[in-house]
Amino acid sequence: MDLAKVIGKIWATQKDPQLEGLKMQLIQPIDARSKNAGSVIIALDTVGAGEGDTVFYITASEAVIPLKRKPALTDASIIGIVDRINI
Amino acid sequence: MDLAKVIGKIWATQKDPQLEGLKMQLIQPIDARSKNAGSVIIALDTVGAGEGDTVFYITASEAVIPLKRKPALTDASIIGIVDRINI
Amino acid sequence: MDLAKVIGKIWATQKDPQLEGLKMQLIQPIDARSKNAGSVIIALDTVGAGEGDTVFYITASEAVIPLKRKPALTDASIIGIVDRINI
Amino acid sequence: MDLAKVIGKIWATQKDPQLEGLKMQLIQPIDARSKNAGSVIIALDTVGAGEGDTVFYITASEAVIPLKRKPALTDASIIGIVDRINI
Amino acid sequence: MDLAKVIGKIWATQKDPQLEGLKMQLIQPIDARSKNAGSVIIALDTVGAGEGDTVFYITASEAVIPLKRKPALTDASIIGIVDRINI
Repeated sequence: MDLAKVIGKIWATQKDPQLEGLKMQLIQPIDARSKNAGSVIIALDTVGAGEGDTVFYITASEAVIPLKRKPALTDASIIGIVDRINI
Repeated sequence: MDLAKVIGKIWATQKDPQLEGLKMQLIQPIDARSKNAGSVIIALDTVGAGEGDTVFYITASEAVIPLKRKPALTDASIIGIVDRINI
Repeated sequence: MDLAKVIGKIWATQKDPQLEGLKMQLIQPIDARSKNAGSVIIALDTVGAGEGDTVFYITASEAVIPLKRKPALTDASIIGIVDRINI
Repeated sequence: MDLAKVIGKIWATQKDPQLEGLKMQLIQPIDARSKNAGSVIIALDTVGAGEGDTVFYITASEAVIPLKRKPALTDASIIGIVDRINI
Repeated sequence: MDLAKVIGKIWATQKDPQLEGLKMQLIQPIDARSKNAGSVIIALDTVGAGEGDTVFYITASEAVIPLKRKPALTDASIIGIVDRINI
């Protein structure tokens, strides 16, 4: 799983119908010291993350696990909100 | 899912027969501020995206979900057209 | 599989319920000479690794294999602690 | 899918028996303007590509789809020869 | 599939029991001209590669195919030893 910060939202009216009702978040991958690490990605959110939250997300085929509906149309899902990192 | 801009098309007469009838788009991955991020990729399009559109696409094994025919011969599919990004 | 060093822990109270009871470690991918190689990742630990240990981990869909509960909510799992590297 | 140029061949007598009879091509990933993009990879070829051809290839688990024999021992397969790119 | 050179071995007494009896090799990914390309990885070896050999390996979920035991705990497997590369 990777660390990211929730930085915004995207709007898309024309999209695959299987995305209806799912919450998409724009997240910026970060390293352990909160520096940006790579391009933003769009992740589905099932844990109620909000803008500014540090989260961790899962990618690839395991990203579908948190979604109730299967097969889920996602390759990235937020699965937790980070309270604290200890290095 | 990742952001990209539709930048063109490719023509290929000699190809796997399972690609017949599928719409391939040449897309340039971008970051949240529309700067290029990595090499172009070829994605299947099932949402009617056109040149110049900002889209988001799904990769890996989930890319087959939007296609009716299964197994679908793709590792990248456009699944939405971005109207607006709010950061 | 890739090499990493265990560098810390993360705390997350708000998370997917399927993560309950699983041990998450913050690991820093390294190269064969222990230099950092890429961003930190969060891996599940089933071999009892501790802070400072050099470990190797498995990613993608095979990361679920070490977990008893299936499907396991992970895309990275520590599967061994390195005693010695010989180059 | 990604763009590449067929640049050569490899010979390997000692290999997994499931590779027997399959055609391996050495390909150089390129961007839309034919500049090299990343390290060469070895892809299976089922469309009859030849040295110098610009091709597109599929990776990951979908790479097995073009092969008749299943499971196919590949993580990259050429699936088309590019006639023309329009940007 | 990608090119690599076998550069060493790792020892790990504390590891997932599903790794028992499997041969792990430390390999350095290389490009077509034998220059290093990225961090070392640990791959399972089923073709009898030795230190100094140029090999090619398969990653992701297809890496389990060469192993007899299924599911196999690997995301990278050496599947051939390169005799000659012609560019």
